[in-house]
Amino acid sequence: MHDVPTKQVDAKAERALRRRAEILRAAVQLFQEDGYHSTTTHAVADRAGISVGLIYQYFGNKEDLLRAAIVDILGEFRDRIPVAMDEAGDDPEARLRSGFRTLVAVIDEKPEATVLSYRESMTLSREGRDELKKLEVETAEPFRRAIEDGIRSGAFRAVDADLVVHNLLLVAHGWALKHWRLSTWLDLDTYVQRELDLVLGAIRP
Amino acid sequence: MHDVPTKQVDAKAERALRRRAEILRAAVQLFQEDGYHSTTTHAVADRAGISVGLIYQYFGNKEDLLRAAIVDILGEFRDRIPVAMDEAGDDPEARLRSGFRTLVAVIDEKPEATVLSYRESMTLSREGRDELKKLEVETAEPFRRAIEDGIRSGAFRAVDADLVVHNLLLVAHGWALKHWRLSTWLDLDTYVQRELDLVLGAIRP
Repeated sequence: MHDVPTKQVDAKAERALRRRAEILRAAVQLFQEDGYHSTTTHAVADRAGISVGLIYQYFGNKEDLLRAAIVDILGEFRDRIPVAMDEAGDDPEARLRSGFRTLVAVIDEKPEATVLSYRESMTLSREGRDELKKLEVETAEPFRRAIEDGIRSGAFRAVDADLVVHNLLLVAHGWALKHWRLSTWLDLDTYVQRELDLVLGAIRP
Repeated sequence: MHDVPTKQVDAKAERALRRRAEILRAAVQLFQEDGYHSTTTHAVADRAGISVGLIYQYFGNKEDLLRAAIVDILGEFRDRIPVAMDEAGDDPEARLRSGFRTLVAVIDEKPEATVLSYRESMTLSREGRDELKKLEVETAEPFRRAIEDGIRSGAFRAVDADLVVHNLLLVAHGWALKHWRLSTWLDLDTYVQRELDLVLGAIRP
């Protein structure tokens, strides 16, 4: 075996990650424009400007592309939301605000993937669907904990924390699902601000 | 032309309406089970226990079946929600409660059609999508009016009424979209009750 300088390995791994992200972006765009069923892996390769063979180095088949696109955004929620909450400190309300702002920001960056998760999750195998449900529950978890901490400290009423989290997630998804309507009178920051005012108004004592 | 007794005409019209509803029910079931793209009009005819020819007496093609299934549930919202609100009297809060309860009840009766409207609305032609958007705005209208009446009378804070309606609709759809999770700890009545407590808690002065 050759000794490969670390820097070179890193550059290679980085290029692979970038290429993978490009393929996913092309797939999500085409699934959105033409529908999942009308999209071929050839079309995805064309859009990404690479060969079909290269796609198969990264993904097993078209369903795997779909699964990866949905898992990708759920993975961003899982990675970024707890960090955003921790940056906000210990106050449950500040944590909730920061986590929700990040949740909607990720959705605003990847609206097509959000819509795709509603449109095509039933297209996945049972195994793929179970993976998504697990990731969805993981996304909910830091919100649930912030609300339960707030209930314990008296910052919030004794509400059904799981239900409030369900609402927060729905409302965040709603920014992508109903963007055609919301964008006629709201921008991202105003949406986040007004939704937070409503949910906090509902759960403050 | 023959003189047809009115009663006979009514019976015939009623049979046609019933058959139309049966075809739609079969279509929605199959779209849900196998996906829209894998479902044929032949399979819908088999499931409804009729001939394919008969389907074409009621619907133009498969896309028309999809459009009709989604329009059907939106039509129920449009017909039943204002009635339920009027039965509740003049009080904006009572009107909101009654309208929301009916909204979620219709969704509970037709969860597959609700999920279908998220999964397949992009499959429709531009014309079909515009029809849905128009009906969705019509569904929102009586809720918007109840909230604005409440703001004027001082029963509610000066909230963004359109945003509150957006949330009410999302949360109602959520009963079908996230039923796999919600049904692990909530039944329909508890869901409606707790969601109303949250939204009213958010908008009361």
